[in-house]
Formats: sequence, structure tokens, C-alpha cells
Amino acid sequence: MKKKQFAVVGLGRFGSSVAYTLTNMGYDVLVVDKSENKVQDASKEVTHAIQADATVEKNLISIGLRNFDVVIISIGENIQASIMATLIAKELGVGYVVVKAQNKMHGKVLERIGADRVIYPEWDMGARVAHNLATTNILDYIELAPDYSIAEVTVPKKMAGKTLRDLDLRARYGVTVLAVKREDDVNISPKPTDKFREKDVLIVVGKHDNINQIEEFTS
Amino acid sequence: MKKKQFAVVGLGRFGSSVAYTLTNMGYDVLVVDKSENKVQDASKEVTHAIQADATVEKNLISIGLRNFDVVIISIGENIQASIMATLIAKELGVGYVVVKAQNKMHGKVLERIGADRVIYPEWDMGARVAHNLATTNILDYIELAPDYSIAEVTVPKKMAGKTLRDLDLRARYGVTVLAVKREDDVNISPKPTDKFREKDVLIVVGKHDNINQIEEFTS
Ligand SMILES: Nc1ncnc2c1ncn2[C@@H]1O[C@H](COP(=O)(O)OP(=O)(O)OP(=O)(O)O)[C@@H](O)[C@H]1O
Ligand SMILES: Nc1ncnc2c1ncn2[C@@H]1O[C@H](COP(=O)(O)OP(=O)(O)OP(=O)(O)O)[C@@H](O)[C@H]1O
Ligand SMILES: [Ca+2]
Ligand SMILES: [Ca+2]
Ligand SMILES: [Ca+2]
Ligand SMILES: [Ca+2]
Repeated sequence: MKKKQFAVVGLGRFGSSVAYTLTNMGYDVLVVDKSENKVQDASKEVTHAIQADATVEKNLISIGLRNFDVVIISIGENIQASIMATLIAKELGVGYVVVKAQNKMHGKVLERIGADRVIYPEWDMGARVAHNLATTNILDYIELAPDYSIAEVTVPKKMAGKTLRDLDLRARYGVTVLAVKREDDVNISPKPTDKFREKDVLIVVGKHDNINQIEEFTS
Repeated sequence: MKKKQFAVVGLGRFGSSVAYTLTNMGYDVLVVDKSENKVQDASKEVTHAIQADATVEKNLISIGLRNFDVVIISIGENIQASIMATLIAKELGVGYVVVKAQNKMHGKVLERIGADRVIYPEWDMGARVAHNLATTNILDYIELAPDYSIAEVTVPKKMAGKTLRDLDLRARYGVTVLAVKREDDVNISPKPTDKFREKDVLIVVGKHDNINQIEEFTS
């Protein structure tokens, strides 16, 4: 399978992070920004960096934007420029255009003009961080269904030295331990007799409320 | 266990999202912003909303900030105000102060003056979105170790109708299926003879590169 080709338009913090992460994952990434400085900084990190105003159709044509599989438009504050660039990218025939939105109105307009995915980074991270803070033991989670998730939970002090069988989290809370992470190792089939150590991280699946109770039970 | 008490200082997009999410989770949240408008909007959503300049120590004293378990400072653009508010919160004795940083320098200063956690929302979401875009099938993931993760993967068309045993992902790629999500149901102990359907979502654990190969293998 040919590797996907990515272009990132707008090198704010979000756009830069997308571009650098993709580069680190081994992808070719073209970045475009109207600021000379931003382009110069980025050219040390990514495959191609071009200085251009993305609201001018002929610029995006000469860059060959239509040949990219995925274009990420991350011009945040200038909402009009973000909308213009999105419109042009879709008109040029880019298959998948992802756009960072500043607010709901901006997002709605982007969807109407054909954006394939609209992202609200600050809002999404706020929700993630809130979940994380509400439950100090929960490091990260994937929502499987509303109120049902896979979560990464640090082993509280009082759990240390106990076995999976001792704790019997499944019977008590309907929470199943899928894996145990210890330093750089991951044990994906923990035995009932395995003892937990402090600083172990459990990967559990269950209802969000029940996962939270693990913390309360042990403290 | 007494519910944790949260205060959010600064109602940008990130701060608002933290405050509203915590409120929806059933927590009492106090929000503070120097803008009358922001406070008025927020007062419809959260338990308490107070208008105050958070860089003035006596304001934070009279609000009783020290009685909160967790204070989230999400004043972004005014870096000096963010630093001042953090310093005061720590001096008042708040146990856990989380602060949104604009850039690495800002973050370093925050850590030096005692912030318990520094968050870069745009940067973190950029990395998440990059992973997600690189692999259209991967909906979400938890990093277990560098290059080793639990991921939520949509079943590609060509997998539909096949059983876990047919596909033998573990032998082929070292990827283990932990659970299968179908509409609102989650099956956390899939049998070797279970047939996948299109639109099923697999929860898998393995090396990031190997998880990516699932997509390539089937397309
Ligand atoms: N018309 C344009 N063409 C190309 N690049 C542009 C254009 N307008 C703005 N940009 C670039 O987009 C980048 C991001 O813009 P901006 O700082 O407004 O986003 P932001 O939402 O604040 O980003 P973040 O919050 O992720 O840091 C800037 O580097 C800016 O130079
Ligand atoms: N000294 C202060 N005391 C209280 N609130 C303040 C103070 N300074 C700024 N704020 C408030 O902080 C809020 C967020 O600030 P700002 O818009 O700069 O953050 P931001 O980083 O752009 O946020 P986001 O990117 O998450 O939307 C604003 O509502 C502003 O009124
Ligand atoms: Ca900006
Ligand atoms: Ca921002
Ligand atoms: Ca996750
Ligand atoms: Ca702002």
C-alpha cells in the first residue's frame, strides 16, 4: 500500500503538532504557511515547507494540493481564511480535508462547505482533562459507549501486594482487568494469582462510574 | 469519600470545556474569570461563577481558593497573568494546580513555580489527531509504552464474515483482540469462532506498526 500523503496548512500549535507527529511516524508531510518565519522553522523538521497564502486558489494549485490524500487546515484565528482555504481544497478535489474550528459557528460553516472532519482541539482536550482530573487514578481512557470505557488506571497503594483474585474487581464492580503494565512491559493475560505492585497500571474495561469506584474502594 | 472540589480560572475554550465536563459528571465547579460576559454565560452552566482578576491575591483569598482540591488555571494568551495566578494559588496552599501553557517556555516557568501539572492542549490534540489520520481505521488509542498501544480499530470490509480464528491476528501480527464493540454492546471475551461484522470495532493491543498492518492486510 502506498503511504498516505499529508499536507498541513497553517502552523499554529495544533498544525505544527500534527505535522511533526506525522513526520516522526515516517510520513512525508508538506507544510504551508503564509509566515516566512514559521516556514523556515518547520523546514528543519518536515519533508517540504512552502510559504504561501492558502486563500489564493492559484497558490494551492501550483503547490499541487490536489495530489494529497489528506489536507489538514489549521488556520485558527482568521476564520475567514480557514473557510476560504477549505473551500478551495475541496474544489480542487482533495479527498479528505480536516479542519480546526474556533467555535461551533465556524464548525458548522466548515461542514456545509464540505469539510470531511471538523476538530475542536481545546474543547476536546478540556473534556479529556476533566475526566482525568475527576479520577486521579485514571490516566487515559477510550470511550466504548456512553458511560462504558477502557481505562488506564494506576494501582492505588492499598492494592499493592494483592492478587487479581483477592480484589475480585469483576464481581465487585463489573470491571474486568484486560492487561497490566509494569514499567515498559505489558502483560496482556494477567493470571488470577498475579500480585499487583505499586505503580503498576491496569488496563480495565467497565462502566465509567464503576471504574471510578476502584479508587474509592481502596482509599 | 467526599467529592473533590474544583475551581477553574479562565474561561477560554479549554477552561470552559473542563468546567462544563466536570459539571456534567456531577461535580461542583467554581469558575472565575475577569470578564463579566464570560461569567454571566458560565453561571447558567456551573454551580458558582465569580467575576474577579485572578492575579490579585486578595481576590483569590476572598473566593476561598485554598479550600479547593484541584484548581485549573486556563488563562492562555496572557502568560504573565497565568504565571501570577499559579504562583498565588500555590502560595495559598492549593494541593493540586493544573495549568494550561502556551509554549515550552511558559510551561517551564510554571513547573518551576510549583504547578503540579502543565497541559498543552493544542499540542496534545495535534499528536492524537495525527495518529488517528495516519490510520483511518484507528479511532482512538491509549499508549502503553512507546510504540505499544491499545487501539480501537474499525473492522475493514474484507474482514467481515471472518472469524477471529480465520484471521489469526495474533500469530500474523502479534496483535491481540481484547474486545469487540457492536453498536452499544461490548463483548470483552470474544471467542475464536465469533464472526466479525462490518462496522464492528475491535479493541486490540499490540505494537503500533503491527496494528497499522491490519489495515493494509485487508485492503
Ligand atoms: N491565509 C493563510 N495562508 C496560510 N497560512 C495562514 C493564513 N492565515 C493564517 N495562516 C497561518 O496559520 C497559522 C495558525 O494560525 P493561528 O495562530 O491563528 O491559529 P491558532 O488557532 O491560534 O492555533 P493554535 O491555537 O493551534 O496555536 C499561523 O502560523 C498563520 O501564519
Ligand atoms: N487576570 C485574569 N483573571 C481572570 N481571568 C482572566 C485573566 N486574564 C485572562 N482571563 C480570562 O482567561 C480566559 C482565557 O484566556 P485566553 O482567551 O487568553 O485563553 P486561550 O489560551 O486563548 O484559550 P483557548 O485557546 O482555550 O480558547 C478569558 O476568558 C479571559 O477573560
Ligand atoms: Ca494563535
Ligand atoms: Ca488555542
Ligand atoms: Ca484515549
Ligand atoms: Ca483566545
